Amino acid sequence: MDIELANQEATQRMMEARPVVTGLGKALEVIPGMREDLLLHAGPPITWERASGPMRGAITGALIFEGKAKTEADARALIESGAIKLEPCHHHQAVGPMAGITCPSMSVYVLENKTHGNKSFSNLNEGYGKVLRYGAYSEEVLDRLRWMEEVMAPVLGKAIKLAGGIDMRVLLSESLHMGDEGHNRNKAGSILFTKILAPYIVKATSDSEVASQIIRTLGDNALSVLNPVMAACKGMADAAHNVEGSTIVSVMARNGTDFGIRVSGLGDRWFTAPVGTPQGLYFPGFKAEDASGDIGDSTITETAGIGGFAMASAPAIVTFVSGTPKDALNTTLEMYEITYTEHKYFTIPPLDFRGTPTGIDIRKVVETGITPRINTGIAHKEAGVGQVGAGLVRPPMTIFEQALVAFAEKYGF
Amino acid sequence: MDIELANQEATQRMMEARPVVTGLGKALEVIPGMREDLLLHAGPPITWERASGPMRGAITGALIFEGKAKTEADARALIESGAIKLEPCHHHQAVGPMAGITCPSMSVYVLENKTHGNKSFSNLNEGYGKVLRYGAYSEEVLDRLRWMEEVMAPVLGKAIKLAGGIDMRVLLSESLHMGDEGHNRNKAGSILFTKILAPYIVKATSDSEVASQIIRTLGDNALSVLNPVMAACKGMADAAHNVEGSTIVSVMARNGTDFGIRVSGLGDRWFTAPVGTPQGLYFPGFKAEDASGDIGDSTITETAGIGGFAMASAPAIVTFVSGTPKDALNTTLEMYEITYTEHKYFTIPPLDFRGTPTGIDIRKVVETGITPRINTGIAHKEAGVGQVGAGLVRPPMTIFEQALVAFAEKYGF
Repeated sequence: MDIELANQEATQRMMEARPVVTGLGKALEVIPGMREDLLLHAGPPITWERASGPMRGAITGALIFEGKAKTEADARALIESGAIKLEPCHHHQAVGPMAGITCPSMSVYVLENKTHGNKSFSNLNEGYGKVLRYGAYSEEVLDRLRWMEEVMAPVLGKAIKLAGGIDMRVLLSESLHMGDEGHNRNKAGSILFTKILAPYIVKATSDSEVASQIIRTLGDNALSVLNPVMAACKGMADAAHNVEGSTIVSVMARNGTDFGIRVSGLGDRWFTAPVGTPQGLYFPGFKAEDASGDIGDSTITETAGIGGFAMASAPAIVTFVSGTPKDALNTTLEMYEITYTEHKYFTIPPLDFRGTPTGIDIRKVVETGITPRINTGIAHKEAGVGQVGAGLVRPPMTIFEQALVAFAEKYGF
Repeated sequence: MDIELANQEATQRMMEARPVVTGLGKALEVIPGMREDLLLHAGPPITWERASGPMRGAITGALIFEGKAKTEADARALIESGAIKLEPCHHHQAVGPMAGITCPSMSVYVLENKTHGNKSFSNLNEGYGKVLRYGAYSEEVLDRLRWMEEVMAPVLGKAIKLAGGIDMRVLLSESLHMGDEGHNRNKAGSILFTKILAPYIVKATSDSEVASQIIRTLGDNALSVLNPVMAACKGMADAAHNVEGSTIVSVMARNGTDFGIRVSGLGDRWFTAPVGTPQGLYFPGFKAEDASGDIGDSTITETAGIGGFAMASAPAIVTFVSGTPKDALNTTLEMYEITYTEHKYFTIPPLDFRGTPTGIDIRKVVETGITPRINTGIAHKEAGVGQVGAGLVRPPMTIFEQALVAFAEKYGF
């Protein structure tokens, strides 16, 4: 068995994947293995007992949204009794930002990788501030979710069909040339997404007030494309998963308590350790002590070669996550040290159109002592508050070491 | 008289100008001094005899559009007889890209500088390919102009009012952080413009097919914001004009035959010399011998501190105009040598958010021997063909020397 060849195959598959948003569907109806008694969450498996504040808040909000609970105590009882189960989004070809809670009656984007045929899923982005994914579940949060579900989703789904789908690899190639890195800065991608869909949103409803509201909701939310971007990266990473003998990371994800990775040649086993806390800039009125531990499936972007890895494309992001444009450049340059290849389709203009560092090799991480760099939002540690800042974080080194040991055991090196 | 103080005042006025698109209006009704027998054109004054192929083509197309001519021979006769007059856009607070022909019944953007009160104007962008501004006037070109005038303009004008106007300085600050330089790359600006207007376009017409078409026309044309950007720069440059004792350039413009400048402290006198030919990349099927001389009022962008001067913000533009991202960086760095200040509101992330080089000082141009760098489209030299490429060009040094001599004569240095 040749690890180099295996890694070449895995990264080729990752880069040649071409995920297209084909429509929207109710999670219960479209996500494989979704059930009425199930909530999907970000990161590796978690229990209520070990769940962070924002994760508990988002679980509570989702159960209120589903009409199954009224308070956090109700939610806790449902989870602890086993009446409602928790499973990672990643066990169901799905991803969700921050808490990542996806419940049966929520609409999700459906993506199909046109090269390899695998599907992937993500819920809709709620915007900034007090939102479910950051553990907020006030009436305002739930009202917005209901509007998104009842008013926006049917029109958006129809518009995506009318548009003939949206090729996310093309969109990302373009947005990386417009100052995005695809994880924490999605300004250009979100308005590209809006400008593609707006002419069809107009045709998907006869109510011009509704059309206007939906276009504004998508266009004014600089993260509206984050969820389909994440699902696209999930489709790419899944295409690279289960390549026999490959040391390439195919999942990085956090649940607010543990950071977990999966490795292409090591099947569905998680390697986990406690999360760190992001370093960055806080919104007015918040400080480092308010921060929850690192949380969310959005690290699927770095897994697929964008996000923190493409930060050289997005110098203006430092106004949001701290640091200087030179730091942004150095972040990308450092990631070439631990990746297998340079992306064929995602290129960085300030680096002479060099491809983004793609395909984290657990051997290189352990050898160099360099862990992946991640751009991320920062959640408040208490349930119900929301986002308090944005910054950078790294996963714990130990999960790469554990994975390398497992690799040696499995393959007999 | 203190030249430094005068230049400080001129550049302060240029930077503090805040042009807002407030609506659309027919050129005849809104542009000061516009008349039924008048066509406005790009650059300094020109006669039919000395006009380039694309200028003659655009004049012909505009007179067909106005119902006053059927052929180029008709157009020539009308101009040479004096029945139709030609005057520069710049004599009427207006600017137009390439040939810049603006005729009485065309709709134009109306901008108001909220700081100093002056107005500025520009026509609507037609998109790429065979278009009037490049001298094309086939039936397809005229049909598009008629659709823009009859269908698009009324809805767009209403949408701008409903949106409460569009602050172009804010839009440009943002688009310069999204890989635009504002002259030859306006991808981000055009979709920002579209996303601001789309929710109101939906409300401005009851015909959803029309709304859909207009949104697509704006969103899919990466130059749709060029004309309001140019008018915004005209508003900024006009605010800096007529400052007694200032050596700052307040207009740079080309008519395809002559390159002309005006200087803040030298009133409305033009300093002109023959244009050069841009160096750049040609569209498939075209080559350097097909190129017309340098043409258009779009150099108002460089006059106001963006365009070629902000090229460091737009490394991806080199795929369009030739060169490397390093060349783009060097272009901006070179322009600091000949400008008075760094822009307060237009900043360049890759240069640590340094302000763009702003306010061309004719003394510095003559002293250093460095002429302004301009990003530009390239027109075919024959009437009726259209755009054949894009590249970079510089104005002739002699116009800066003439202006400096005139300055010395006027102010007695």
